[in-house]
Amino acid sequence: MGKEITSREQDYSQWYNDLIIKGGLADYSAVRGCMVIKPYGYTLWENMRDVLDKMFKETGHVNAYFPLFVPKSLFEAEEKNAEGFAKECAIVTHYRLKTDPDNPGKLKVDPEAKLDEELIVRPTSEAIIWNTYKGWIQSYRDLPLLINQWANVVRWEMRTRLFLRTAEFLWQEGHTAHATKEEAIQETTKMLDVYADFVENWMALPVVKGVKTPNERFAGAEDTYCIEALMQDGKALQAGTSHFLGQNFAKAFDVKFSDKENKLDYVWATSWGVSTRLIGALVMAHSDDDGLILPPKIAPLQVVIVPIYKGDDQKAQIDAKVAEIVAALKAAGVSVKYDDSENARPGWKFAEYEMKGVPVRIAIGARDLENNVVEVARRDTKEKKSYSFDGLPQQIIALLADIQQNIYNKAKAHRDTHITSVDTWDEFVKTLDEKTGFVSAHWDGTPETEEKIKDMTKATIRCIPLNNAQEAGKCILTGNPSTQRVLFARAY
Amino acid sequence: MGKEITSREQDYSQWYNDLIIKGGLADYSAVRGCMVIKPYGYTLWENMRDVLDKMFKETGHVNAYFPLFVPKSLFEAEEKNAEGFAKECAIVTHYRLKTDPDNPGKLKVDPEAKLDEELIVRPTSEAIIWNTYKGWIQSYRDLPLLINQWANVVRWEMRTRLFLRTAEFLWQEGHTAHATKEEAIQETTKMLDVYADFVENWMALPVVKGVKTPNERFAGAEDTYCIEALMQDGKALQAGTSHFLGQNFAKAFDVKFSDKENKLDYVWATSWGVSTRLIGALVMAHSDDDGLILPPKIAPLQVVIVPIYKGDDQKAQIDAKVAEIVAALKAAGVSVKYDDSENARPGWKFAEYEMKGVPVRIAIGARDLENNVVEVARRDTKEKKSYSFDGLPQQIIALLADIQQNIYNKAKAHRDTHITSVDTWDEFVKTLDEKTGFVSAHWDGTPETEEKIKDMTKATIRCIPLNNAQEAGKCILTGNPSTQRVLFARAY
Repeated sequence: MGKEITSREQDYSQWYNDLIIKGGLADYSAVRGCMVIKPYGYTLWENMRDVLDKMFKETGHVNAYFPLFVPKSLFEAEEKNAEGFAKECAIVTHYRLKTDPDNPGKLKVDPEAKLDEELIVRPTSEAIIWNTYKGWIQSYRDLPLLINQWANVVRWEMRTRLFLRTAEFLWQEGHTAHATKEEAIQETTKMLDVYADFVENWMALPVVKGVKTPNERFAGAEDTYCIEALMQDGKALQAGTSHFLGQNFAKAFDVKFSDKENKLDYVWATSWGVSTRLIGALVMAHSDDDGLILPPKIAPLQVVIVPIYKGDDQKAQIDAKVAEIVAALKAAGVSVKYDDSENARPGWKFAEYEMKGVPVRIAIGARDLENNVVEVARRDTKEKKSYSFDGLPQQIIALLADIQQNIYNKAKAHRDTHITSVDTWDEFVKTLDEKTGFVSAHWDGTPETEEKIKDMTKATIRCIPLNNAQEAGKCILTGNPSTQRVLFARAY
Repeated sequence: MGKEITSREQDYSQWYNDLIIKGGLADYSAVRGCMVIKPYGYTLWENMRDVLDKMFKETGHVNAYFPLFVPKSLFEAEEKNAEGFAKECAIVTHYRLKTDPDNPGKLKVDPEAKLDEELIVRPTSEAIIWNTYKGWIQSYRDLPLLINQWANVVRWEMRTRLFLRTAEFLWQEGHTAHATKEEAIQETTKMLDVYADFVENWMALPVVKGVKTPNERFAGAEDTYCIEALMQDGKALQAGTSHFLGQNFAKAFDVKFSDKENKLDYVWATSWGVSTRLIGALVMAHSDDDGLILPPKIAPLQVVIVPIYKGDDQKAQIDAKVAEIVAALKAAGVSVKYDDSENARPGWKFAEYEMKGVPVRIAIGARDLENNVVEVARRDTKEKKSYSFDGLPQQIIALLADIQQNIYNKAKAHRDTHITSVDTWDEFVKTLDEKTGFVSAHWDGTPETEEKIKDMTKATIRCIPLNNAQEAGKCILTGNPSTQRVLFARAY
C-alpha cells in the first residue's frame, strides 16, 4: 500500500513518528526542533481550538493578544519563573541584517543594530501580561479580569519530538486576576474541570485530575493542578495544567487594587494552558498499527465515501446516489468527502483513509446500488457492515457517536487496568518495568525522596489525585510514615 | 463624561490614537513598537478573521502552520525578498540566559549558547514555506497547493502607529503553488477580489483595485495587486495585497514538478495577505469626534440595552421586558448586552458605548414600559427614535442592515468626491495639498519620475487601476507621452 508503518511492538517511538508523518499531521522543518503543522493536522487543531474557545467564553473569558517579546528586565522580575525558563529561551539581540561584504549576495547581522535590552521570545506570558495588568487594575471594580490568549510560544528544548515537545508550539494561555485568594483557587480548579471535560468528552481520553508536588510545580506558582493521561505504552502524559499563582506576579509587577473599603492589596492570579502537545497525546492514546484513530467529535474529516465502479454509466449512477448521501450528512453537520479521484484505486484509498484515521468509510459499488445498500467500515474496530440507504444519515450519526464512546471506553479500560497499588519497593520497580502505567504508592512527602525515586527509576510523581483518600502507610523507599498514596509513572 | 477625545480638526493623528486607546481596542506595551490588542479589539479581529477564513475555505484553501523562525541561509535565498526585509528583522542569536554573577537576581545572555546560524523572526513566510514545499511537490498531481496561515510576524519598523504600523502584527498569509503561469495569475486576482469583497461588504469601506508600479511591488514579486482605501483626512491606505510571484521562489528553493508529459518545470507561486492594519483603516475611515463607528456586520457588540429606572420595582419590570428582547435578538443571531451595572449612570454609559462604536443603543425607562416603546439610538447618525415593542427584533435587524449600508455609502461618497483628475503639475500639487484624496494623473511610466514626484510631494502611485482606461496624455511632471492615468495619493 505504499506507506509502511512501524508496528508498536517493533518500535513504539518510531510507530508514533510514522503516524504523524505518514498520517499527514505534521512534517519536520528546516528549523531545529520546530515542526510544520500540515493542513490535516492543523484542521484537527482548529477543531480542538474551536471547542475549547467556546468553553472558555461560556465560562466568562475573553481573548486578547500580548506581545511575542518580553524585555529581559520584565522577564527576570518574577525570579522563580525566570529561573525556570532561563535555560531554554530564544533571545533576540539585533534588529537588522546587512549585506555581507565578504560574501556577495549573502547577509550578516549588523553589529550596529544591537538592541539596548535583549528581548526574550515568550516561553509563557505571565511577565508581559502582569506588567500590562498593572495599568488595567486599580480597583475591585476592575476584577476579576478573565483573559485568554491563543499564541505561539518558544522553549528551546534540547530533545524534541513532533507535537510532544517542540521548540515552538501553539497553545492557549489563560491569565486571570482576582480580588481574593478563594476566588483565584476556584478559577484554577474550574479551568482544570474545563480541560478534563474537553479531553475526556471530545478527545475520548480519560484523565486523572490532581495537584503537582512542589518539585513538579510551574515555576512561579503556589500550586499546579493537572490532568494526567495514560498512553498505550504505559507512560503518562501531562495533558493540561492550571496554576494558582498566589500574589507572586502581582508582587513582582506591583499590581495592587483598592477594595470596597479602599484598602490596597495585591491581586491574586491564575494561569492555565493546553497546547498542540494534546495532538501527540491523542495520537499515542488511540491509534493502531494501521494508522491514526481519531475521535469523530474532533476528526478533521468524519466520513469518506469511495466509489467502486466500471465504466462511466456505473459511475454516474453512483455519483447521483452519493450526492444524496453527502447532502443529507452535511445538512446534519457531518463532515464528509467523496473521493472519486482517478489517481488511485479503491484499495489504496482504503489504506490511506485508515492511515489518516477517518472514523467512517463508506464504499459503494454497482451491486450495492441494486441492493439498496452501502458498505460501511468503522475505523476503530475495522468492522464492516452493510447499511441500507433508507435512513442512512441517521445510522451514520449514531455510528459516529458509538465510535466516540468506544474509543473512550477502550482508553478507559486500558487506563483503569494500569493503575496499580503497591506497598513495597520491589513491587514498585517491577510494576514500573513490567506492567507499566500509574503506580499508586505511599511517599513520605519530602522532595528528597521524590528526587531519589526519580533518579533510581525515572518515575516521577504525576500527581496527588484530587480528593485523595487519606490513609496511613509507609513510604515505599524510606519506610517513613505517609498519609496518602500518590500516583507515580514514567512520563512523556 | 471622563474620556475626552481630541477632535479630528484639532489633531487628526491624536484623534486616531485617542479612539484606539479610549475605545478599548489596544494599548501600548512595554516592548518598543509592539501593542497589546485588548479584548474589545481582539473580538473585532476575531470577527474579521472568521469571515475571511470562511471565504478562504470556500475558495478551496486550507490552513497550516509554519515555523516562526527562518534560518538566515533560507532567508537570503530569494535575494530581492531578502534585501527588501533585511533592514527590519528581529534576529535570534542565542538560546539561553544565565544568572549574572555581577547582578544578583538578574540574568544575562549566556555567551556559550550562541546559535551556529542566526534565526530571523519571520517578517513574511515565503522562504520557510517554499523551502517546505520543495518536499511536498513532485508532480502536477500535487498542484495546486492552496495554503493559508494565520500568524504573527515581526518587522522592525522605526516609526510605529497602533494597528497601522507595529513591529509585531497579526495577519494571514496565503501561499499557493500552481502548474501554470495563467493559473497563478488567476489565483492572484481571485484573492484580490475576495479581499475587496470583504473590505467593502463587511468593513463598509470602498476600495480601488489595482496593480502596483515596479517601485511599489512586494520584494520578490513579479506583480503586486492591491486594494486601496481612502481615509477621512484624504490619505490613502493600502488595505490588502495579492502577489504574483512568478517562478522566483521556486527557482530560489529549487521546487520543480513533472507535468503530464513528465517534463520538469519550476512551480508558479502567489502570496497574499491582510493584517490587523485593517483595524486601523476601519477606525480612520468611519469614526467621528465622539468615538468609534463600527459596521454592524463585524462589530464586537451590535446592540447595548441600558435601563433607566428609580427603585427596585421599576428595575424588575424593565428586567423582565429586556429579557424578552435579549432572547429574541440572540435567537436572531444579534450580539446584545444588557448593561444594568450600578457602577455608572445612564449618561455615562451612553457616552461610553458611543465611544466604543456600538451600532445600536436601546434605552428603556418606566414611562417607555407604560407606552410599550423603547428609545433606539443609532451610532452612525446619532438619530434617536421611539420603537414599539411589537416586532422590535425585526426592526433592530433592519436598522443594523441600514446602518451598515449608510456607513458604506458615506465612505463611498467621500471617496468618490476625492478622486480628482488633473492635467498640470500645479493642479496636481494644489489638489494634494488642499483637496487631498486620490489624484488621477498622467505619468510617463518611468521609476525615475515616480521617485521624483514622491520626493517633491510625498505622494506615491497607489495603483494603476484594473481595467484602466487607455488614454493618450502627457506626464504631469516631465511632459513626456503617457498612455494612461494612474492614482496618486499621500498614504499611510
